[in-house]
Amino acid sequence: IAPELANRPNPMTLLRDFDYGTVKREKGRTVREFDLIADNSVLQLNSAVKFLSWNVNDRVPGPTLRATEGDRVRIIFRNRAGRPHSLHFHGTHPAEMDGVTPIRSGRETVYEFDAEPYGVHLYHCHIAPVTRHIGKGLFGLFIVDPPQGRSPADEMVLVMGGYDINDDKQNELYAFNGFPDYYQTHPIPIYQNQLVRLYLLNMIEFDPAVTFHIHANLFQVYPTGRTLTPKEETDVITMGTAERHILEFSYPYPGRYMFHPHQDAIAERGCMGEFEVISI
Amino acid sequence: IAPELANRPNPMTLLRDFDYGTVKREKGRTVREFDLIADNSVLQLNSAVKFLSWNVNDRVPGPTLRATEGDRVRIIFRNRAGRPHSLHFHGTHPAEMDGVTPIRSGRETVYEFDAEPYGVHLYHCHIAPVTRHIGKGLFGLFIVDPPQGRSPADEMVLVMGGYDINDDKQNELYAFNGFPDYYQTHPIPIYQNQLVRLYLLNMIEFDPAVTFHIHANLFQVYPTGRTLTPKEETDVITMGTAERHILEFSYPYPGRYMFHPHQDAIAERGCMGEFEVISI
Amino acid sequence: IAPELANRPNPMTLLRDFDYGTVKREKGRTVREFDLIADNSVLQLNSAVKFLSWNVNDRVPGPTLRATEGDRVRIIFRNRAGRPHSLHFHGTHPAEMDGVTPIRSGRETVYEFDAEPYGVHLYHCHIAPVTRHIGKGLFGLFIVDPPQGRSPADEMVLVMGGYDINDDKQNELYAFNGFPDYYQTHPIPIYQNQLVRLYLLNMIEFDPAVTFHIHANLFQVYPTGRTLTPKEETDVITMGTAERHILEFSYPYPGRYMFHPHQDAIAERGCMGEFEVISI
Ligand SMILES: [Cu+2]
Ligand SMILES: [Cu+2]
Ligand SMILES: [Cu+2]
Ligand SMILES: [Cu+2]
Ligand SMILES: [Cu+2]
Ligand SMILES: [Cu+2]
Ligand code: NA
Ligand code: NA
Ligand code: NA
Ligand code: NA
Ligand code: NA
Ligand code: NA
Ligand SMILES: [Zn+2]
Ligand SMILES: [Zn+2]
Ligand SMILES: [Zn+2]
Ligand SMILES: [Zn+2]
Ligand SMILES: [Zn+2]
Ligand SMILES: [Zn+2]
Ligand SMILES: [Zn+2]
Ligand SMILES: [Zn+2]
Ligand SMILES: [Zn+2]
Repeated sequence: IAPELANRPNPMTLLRDFDYGTVKREKGRTVREFDLIADNSVLQLNSAVKFLSWNVNDRVPGPTLRATEGDRVRIIFRNRAGRPHSLHFHGTHPAEMDGVTPIRSGRETVYEFDAEPYGVHLYHCHIAPVTRHIGKGLFGLFIVDPPQGRSPADEMVLVMGGYDINDDKQNELYAFNGFPDYYQTHPIPIYQNQLVRLYLLNMIEFDPAVTFHIHANLFQVYPTGRTLTPKEETDVITMGTAERHILEFSYPYPGRYMFHPHQDAIAERGCMGEFEVISI
Repeated sequence: IAPELANRPNPMTLLRDFDYGTVKREKGRTVREFDLIADNSVLQLNSAVKFLSWNVNDRVPGPTLRATEGDRVRIIFRNRAGRPHSLHFHGTHPAEMDGVTPIRSGRETVYEFDAEPYGVHLYHCHIAPVTRHIGKGLFGLFIVDPPQGRSPADEMVLVMGGYDINDDKQNELYAFNGFPDYYQTHPIPIYQNQLVRLYLLNMIEFDPAVTFHIHANLFQVYPTGRTLTPKEETDVITMGTAERHILEFSYPYPGRYMFHPHQDAIAERGCMGEFEVISI
Repeated sequence: IAPELANRPNPMTLLRDFDYGTVKREKGRTVREFDLIADNSVLQLNSAVKFLSWNVNDRVPGPTLRATEGDRVRIIFRNRAGRPHSLHFHGTHPAEMDGVTPIRSGRETVYEFDAEPYGVHLYHCHIAPVTRHIGKGLFGLFIVDPPQGRSPADEMVLVMGGYDINDDKQNELYAFNGFPDYYQTHPIPIYQNQLVRLYLLNMIEFDPAVTFHIHANLFQVYPTGRTLTPKEETDVITMGTAERHILEFSYPYPGRYMFHPHQDAIAERGCMGEFEVISI
């Protein structure tokens, strides 16, 4: 195994890997500290294509950060990548924590703010050209749970990304959670009649919008995760870049079911996966 | 008239043509049998352009199948097209009825499932490259009515499709219900103050999203037909591939009114129609 | 200052400039008369690029017309542009007021209709090719207020537009309210904790859809302005051409915050601005 692959996180692990940070109590409140390091690493996208990614903590997408509304969030950001980067968070925070200032390589900075409001947010590098810094892989989800929590469910994360292999500002490959077609060759096991809560982010640059579709079922939509009750039910949702939602569904019948953007050209270039519904 | 045109369904007929299948009673429940045949036929798209379509029952879009929630649906699918095809249905059904397995030419298969949930669904071939099998015309609407029905209305179907004439993965022509500009030269007659219920599907591949706009009026939106009350009112709705909705409206004044995607380049290449509102 | 720039409206003025027309009483009701003149003028888009715009009243976007639901609206439209144009309004009106008939240069016409229903509408030239007549700048907002009004707020208008400089049916530059990057170099002053009501229109042709994002905050969405209560809260909204909404938000912390489409290639070619939140 080449060095660049040795520490490659398994996409099946990424799927349900939530980073709650190091928890501290300060002045009576919960503080969550996250250590995030920007660096570069080579991704083996398929048997033929290697891709030099710019990323956080050696993974694409970066860690799924998670806090509860009202927590204090402290991001210790170290840049070891050899070029300037930053971390811009979605959600509410003061201007000085907005992450649009370049952090030079070798430097570090601390982004600190209250986790608010609850919902599905994201972070990404905001250095120009942003299409390139996002396209290279410097992004992740930032989930803020409502104080009362959500109902029990099999929770998972899918981030749709695109790879511009030849720097022509078009994507040649696509992926859920970084690796093209991974969940097609390794279907995601879920249980029959078990509620699945999917945190879905579209982080594809260059394509103006994509859809997300699951087979043989419909899902409930919680737009931007900003509601406790669903606002729509469908099986095809259209999402611009940086749109993200909670989708909930359960499969009534066992078997294998595809999920993919319904722009089939995108699906057929790597943004394709399957659920394996296990009967109970 | 050339053979390929003789049995061409009239788009004005397609508009309000709902196929309820052959109704049977089995074990105390309603079963609807549909005979669908995949084959090829030449469409005369305009005076200059012929297009070899792949389709169901010699029409593009295929028949608008219709059932009531809870009915049993039985699709007898025969492939006579000379290449593998399948019928993948949206809606809820078991994995073995999902229609992703190729049916070789000369063979037939039966897809059977419960019609659920109520809403506006679709079917299409799911053989790779799906962009090509959809782009060639192998799709149609599948409407599942709520048990209690919907209010009386002038119901009609519009499917937006694109034609990649030169196989360059871009569409040169577009159409509502298969024939470019048909409803512009043959406006759809509707009555003043009569409720129109439009079942609208975007089946355009290659373009990431399109809008649909009606002139001089607004419409109520029932997303994916999954609600009994409208969720939004507007006159421009953005739809990714395979998105479909119920739109309801009535025209208060007589006269002619255009409808078209507000991406005017698409409208001006065939996706353009008119309503002729008849005073009462 | 070149003649073409002398009467260029200041984008900071455009932002909060609402044209309520000349108010008359006729037969016991309010009539609002608007004088709109189509002509051509050169826009200096940046230090290197001049653009011959086709527009209304020598500005891009045209004036933001504003009425209350139930008012009578009378548009006196004069075409002095040297080519045919028209004004097509969104909203409800009779066919003969739909503005799809070309008005030859040197002629005038009157569009007259009831302002209904309340919401955020638009007007634009509807002469083919519409992509070109819109892309050249012949459009504006038409706001119809609900009879009871809306709550007090700092109200402003942002219209996203694209410029196809080289007539290749792609946009090379983009802008909020006509001038690329204007609000980045001249941030929009707003006050901390003050409710901002933004009337947002996507008038970009050629790109299938764009998003709109504000930094460090979320906004409430009133789709097409057709509701009195918000329907969604997010910080990224996807909009097809001619989509428009009311967005409401207030900034809890002072400082500078970017707003832009999250399709970063579009943002980085002129569709970029900033709010300057002033502490109180
Ligand atoms: Cu970056
Ligand atoms: Cu499907
Ligand atoms: Cu097929
Ligand atoms: Cu219109
Ligand atoms: Cu025009
Ligand atoms: Cu942001
Ligand atoms: Na915060
Ligand atoms: Na590329
Ligand atoms: Na079913
Ligand atoms: Na083509
Ligand atoms: Na009116
Ligand atoms: Na251009
Ligand atoms: Zn970076
Ligand atoms: Zn962002
Ligand atoms: Zn599929
Ligand atoms: Zn096929
Ligand atoms: Zn489908
Ligand atoms: Zn039109
Ligand atoms: Zn014009
Ligand atoms: Zn329009
Ligand atoms: Zn930004």
